[in-house]
Amino acid sequence: MLDQTALGGHVTATTVSHSDLIGASATDVRAAIRSGAYTGHTAGLAAGKLQCNLAILPENVALDFLRFCQRNPKPCPLVGVSDSGDPALPTLGHDIDIRSDVARYRVFRNGTLTDEVTDITDVWADDLVTVALGCSFTFENALLSNGIPVRHIETGRNVPMFRSNIDLVPAGPFGGQMVVTMRPIPKHQVDQAREISRRYPQAHGAPIAVGDPAQIGISDLGQPDWGDAVDIHPGEMPVYWACGVTPQNVLLNAGLPLCITHAPGHMLIADVAEDAETTILT
Amino acid sequence: MLDQTALGGHVTATTVSHSDLIGASATDVRAAIRSGAYTGHTAGLAAGKLQCNLAILPENVALDFLRFCQRNPKPCPLVGVSDSGDPALPTLGHDIDIRSDVARYRVFRNGTLTDEVTDITDVWADDLVTVALGCSFTFENALLSNGIPVRHIETGRNVPMFRSNIDLVPAGPFGGQMVVTMRPIPKHQVDQAREISRRYPQAHGAPIAVGDPAQIGISDLGQPDWGDAVDIHPGEMPVYWACGVTPQNVLLNAGLPLCITHAPGHMLIADVAEDAETTILT
Repeated sequence: MLDQTALGGHVTATTVSHSDLIGASATDVRAAIRSGAYTGHTAGLAAGKLQCNLAILPENVALDFLRFCQRNPKPCPLVGVSDSGDPALPTLGHDIDIRSDVARYRVFRNGTLTDEVTDITDVWADDLVTVALGCSFTFENALLSNGIPVRHIETGRNVPMFRSNIDLVPAGPFGGQMVVTMRPIPKHQVDQAREISRRYPQAHGAPIAVGDPAQIGISDLGQPDWGDAVDIHPGEMPVYWACGVTPQNVLLNAGLPLCITHAPGHMLIADVAEDAETTILT
Repeated sequence: MLDQTALGGHVTATTVSHSDLIGASATDVRAAIRSGAYTGHTAGLAAGKLQCNLAILPENVALDFLRFCQRNPKPCPLVGVSDSGDPALPTLGHDIDIRSDVARYRVFRNGTLTDEVTDITDVWADDLVTVALGCSFTFENALLSNGIPVRHIETGRNVPMFRSNIDLVPAGPFGGQMVVTMRPIPKHQVDQAREISRRYPQAHGAPIAVGDPAQIGISDLGQPDWGDAVDIHPGEMPVYWACGVTPQNVLLNAGLPLCITHAPGHMLIADVAEDAETTILT
């Protein structure tokens, strides 16, 4: 198929669909994204590889942001940091060019979303630092492969996300409250879900709460702040995990002159195995 | 006992021994250290609490050093970072004052050891950043409690440490080769030792090699570069872990104008449990 539609100012030569990419390697998916042929979400692609939340920000706040991530490892599991001005991330993947290898980016200026684009080559600057953070796809895959159902995946929805009242540990201009995801889990599998997800510190780790949403400041599970509401069946408990939207929210509130993130669901796909001991390619 | 000996320029009011502190809490051990009453090593003290390697360095190289630690998580497991100029480390412990709460410090200027002192209040500056890294005490305790012998502890020696030929992933002025420790493990327990230590990413994680020392550039296990040689009994394999001396070595080679580390074995004792999911106090 040829699709000469302009996407975010860049012209795609060909277009591939999500289903075309099922079974493709991380390198091939990134190549399809880099060429502009694929601009969709990355859930289910490059199975077994780590996918990453992305924060690209000026070097003069990068030390504080790394401190912030170190102090809040469950919402912000640090998996990669670039050199200043260098679009490569060699510890996460071969030949990654962060200016083009994510399907969809959000550009924020002074705390306001100003653009959603499929390439940030035009926005790139010598003082930008890329920070990659783990994402929930990793532990969801582990839950599913251990026979634990994940409702929003079963029903083809986006995970429900909520602002909680859990204070983050601040660093410089970064702080606020944690955003959490909720997944209903059968009561008899809650302990197993906790144990499995704890094995993935690079992907939010164990749940941060189970049960009554009021304990963490959520008033109505039927009204998520982001994503879609899901049903909780009889015999299930709502289980809450730290969410990768937390750092996006924190960055937004910091009102940086420039900051770039991935668009939700449009993650950086690494060459690192999602169950590797570390997130460093060897 | 009263001991008015000047230690590194500071006067101790009373002196307590290592055995006096067995069973004392982390807070009490830190208080004894802070007052100058205890200036010895911390192995076996405040059982169950995380102990930390320490690197204190100027803010203008802190971003690069955090990048270096993120890229080399096995030798440099990041467990705490201070604000610039702030001697507290609230995510690791209540009321830590890093200028006085370590029993013995090494001060390096331009890559040369210039002082070994028991307090760095006089050296402290507004641009210093403290970086705390996990240490091997944590996984050694886990090995011992699972019935796996640790030879250097059995024999009252220091762990043997060796320069390896394993290249570190560089960042800014920081790079070089990994330093490793060696522990002889009975062949039938090597897999178990690997599995146990892998559970402690905050403490060097799983071994980086097993068997022939030549594979990682070590010519003679009887001649460690630091620490003491230990016997390898019939039926045992030499097992190599990433070592916390790596970052000290890397800092030394970077030739920073000022850099402070703990003295070997004289660790920062945190209030965080060594088997906690994260190293952040909650």
